[in-house]
Amino acid sequence: MSELNQHIASAFDRDLEGIQAQILKMGGLVEVAISDAAKSLETRDEELAEQVRRGDKAIDAMEEALNEEAARVIALRAPTARDLRVVLAVMRISGNLERIGDLSKNMAKRTGVLAQMSPISGSTAALRRMARDVEMMLKDALDAYIKRDAALAQDVIERDAEVDQMYNTLFREFLTFMLEDPRNITSCMHLHFIAKNIERMGDHVTSISEQVIFMATGRKPDEPRMKGDRTSTDPTLSADIEVE
Amino acid sequence: MSELNQHIASAFDRDLEGIQAQILKMGGLVEVAISDAAKSLETRDEELAEQVRRGDKAIDAMEEALNEEAARVIALRAPTARDLRVVLAVMRISGNLERIGDLSKNMAKRTGVLAQMSPISGSTAALRRMARDVEMMLKDALDAYIKRDAALAQDVIERDAEVDQMYNTLFREFLTFMLEDPRNITSCMHLHFIAKNIERMGDHVTSISEQVIFMATGRKPDEPRMKGDRTSTDPTLSADIEVE
Repeated sequence: MSELNQHIASAFDRDLEGIQAQILKMGGLVEVAISDAAKSLETRDEELAEQVRRGDKAIDAMEEALNEEAARVIALRAPTARDLRVVLAVMRISGNLERIGDLSKNMAKRTGVLAQMSPISGSTAALRRMARDVEMMLKDALDAYIKRDAALAQDVIERDAEVDQMYNTLFREFLTFMLEDPRNITSCMHLHFIAKNIERMGDHVTSISEQVIFMATGRKPDEPRMKGDRTSTDPTLSADIEVE
Repeated sequence: MSELNQHIASAFDRDLEGIQAQILKMGGLVEVAISDAAKSLETRDEELAEQVRRGDKAIDAMEEALNEEAARVIALRAPTARDLRVVLAVMRISGNLERIGDLSKNMAKRTGVLAQMSPISGSTAALRRMARDVEMMLKDALDAYIKRDAALAQDVIERDAEVDQMYNTLFREFLTFMLEDPRNITSCMHLHFIAKNIERMGDHVTSISEQVIFMATGRKPDEPRMKGDRTSTDPTLSADIEVE
């Protein structure tokens, strides 16, 4: 790169770095939201759940601020098509983070209801493990974003299959609990909901990783995304339980 | 407005009109997706469901194109802070439309599985009515967008409470069916999922309407959004069914 190009690039790059710092701050809040939501569920800590719900407003406000800052940068720097795509990728990442924050909030909302029901053996611990995996994936996706590390981002995408597998296993388990004792039905409905929420968080982390790969390589991952929730399309997965 | 201002405004406005046309086209596809997904479920039409799934790719591509066009307009016109917010609002609307398309696809995905199970009396017809309400809300939200009609947008927001109410009713009904006969559990899990998907579509239409109000009045609706899914937080709603 010529010295002139370096000079031209730097103003835009400095702006991007400012946005990057905001993304990391937002990502940090979202990591805490995932972790606290899952913890509140396992320990039946309604105060912590309330904290997650309140905290989501700050995450929403950060997305708003990030979008406005990104738009300001576009208006100010009139970036090239390539740079424009980078800014759009960052806006998408902030959108994904906001959605993960929302899903954490939704998970925390159910803490109060579930705290009043008999626990389903092992379920909240399993959900917390699943949430921790997603949290680690998010941490690595953000690391990959800072380092423009496509290999790490690809690794995160592959780990999402494990989260999907955990969801499929839990779906079966909840069905079994419900069939064994109808008194488990209501709580299992809520727990299934939470499992699905966490599985969707994994999809959003995957989407962040895809944006990172695009920023690092200029190419979108062309492999079609593995859809891991087989419960929606695999008849055997649910049918073999139904006929028990 | 002075003649000069009109002249200055017009280039940006023409760009916005182009974007508006794309939003309407995208909105039309999303309306069809909602309707076809619900129809495929009720008539057990797996081919129609497959069509919805395939059609979602076109909706995703339109969101991508819209975002790039919006970014191009920002870069080219360097709009004022006020106009910038309008472009950002439009980008959000396209994001909401894309999410509704996704939710329709998710609904259609379950047609195949449910077609292999005994039907739950009246449930797919009720889901289709709920989907139709959301479709009409979306139609009106897009009309309100073209006309910058804040009153119509506000009306759409208020109608979302009815959709939420339909979801709450269905949630109770599915619990009752599951308690009555464990063989209903698997299908009710899927049906509950679909009901929740439609309820979330309503939330996205509400979000579109909020953007419209902002574009029409320059103010965000300051009333906190009514959260209609009381099943996540109202213990009595689920508890009174559990103790039956």
